[in-house]
Amino acid sequence: MRARDLAVEFPTVTLDTPALEAAKLLAEQDLPGLILVDQNGCPCSILPGTQVLRLAVPAYCQDDPALARVVDEAHADLFLRRLGGRTVRECLPEQPRELPVADMKATVLELAALMARTRSPLVAVVDGGRLVGAVTLQSLLDHVLEL
Amino acid sequence: MRARDLAVEFPTVTLDTPALEAAKLLAEQDLPGLILVDQNGCPCSILPGTQVLRLAVPAYCQDDPALARVVDEAHADLFLRRLGGRTVRECLPEQPRELPVADMKATVLELAALMARTRSPLVAVVDGGRLVGAVTLQSLLDHVLEL
Repeated sequence: MRARDLAVEFPTVTLDTPALEAAKLLAEQDLPGLILVDQNGCPCSILPGTQVLRLAVPAYCQDDPALARVVDEAHADLFLRRLGGRTVRECLPEQPRELPVADMKATVLELAALMARTRSPLVAVVDGGRLVGAVTLQSLLDHVLEL
Repeated sequence: MRARDLAVEFPTVTLDTPALEAAKLLAEQDLPGLILVDQNGCPCSILPGTQVLRLAVPAYCQDDPALARVVDEAHADLFLRRLGGRTVRECLPEQPRELPVADMKATVLELAALMARTRSPLVAVVDGGRLVGAVTLQSLLDHVLEL
């Protein structure tokens, strides 16, 4: 079994997608993360769901639990409003890390190792650099447990 | 809105749960991770789904993509068999990290910051140290997007 056998169509976002729309996409479609593609359809970043939260949580709250605690409940409830008119472009992490991107020939072991190493429950599958689909942790486990 | 309003019952595993059973639980119930509790019902570790894969992927494959590639397809398909009779105890990471555990009073902002910081789509909610439920990334987003 290879990535090409497991990859299914998956929604994408671009740098110009409003950040709030990205959060809604994640929630409404129960996605484990988002794939960011450039104008050529090549994945340039994969954001695990937890990292999409980074788009909305003030940096000082992410780094220091005590500071998140001082924001009162009423304001905390509205934290997603911080996204305002911002786009995904403005919310990306500054330091690029290893991307969970695999080619069509990747085995399930390679996909599993990539997910474990990058802590991403979502791997983008490319053919010649262009996105052809994605493999989620759930679909990977479903397939290997059937064997 | 506080953690106590969002927390729902969530399956748990113990140190003695067979690792293969843990992987099946994750897959069959579409869980974003697993909560490991001790004999007192206190969460001692939270394993995001991607980290449950670590239970099965040989360490050398996790760290070096080239080494994962040399395992042929037929053997790669069967990688979960490595779990054999091992238990969760034998598969835990050696270095404990910050746990995504919150008390009942945590606000949605604190929960979101905790998920972002620990990269865990699952937070265990405790009352006096004992597990009372869990909040997932999906349920957190569903609630804050409704506001």
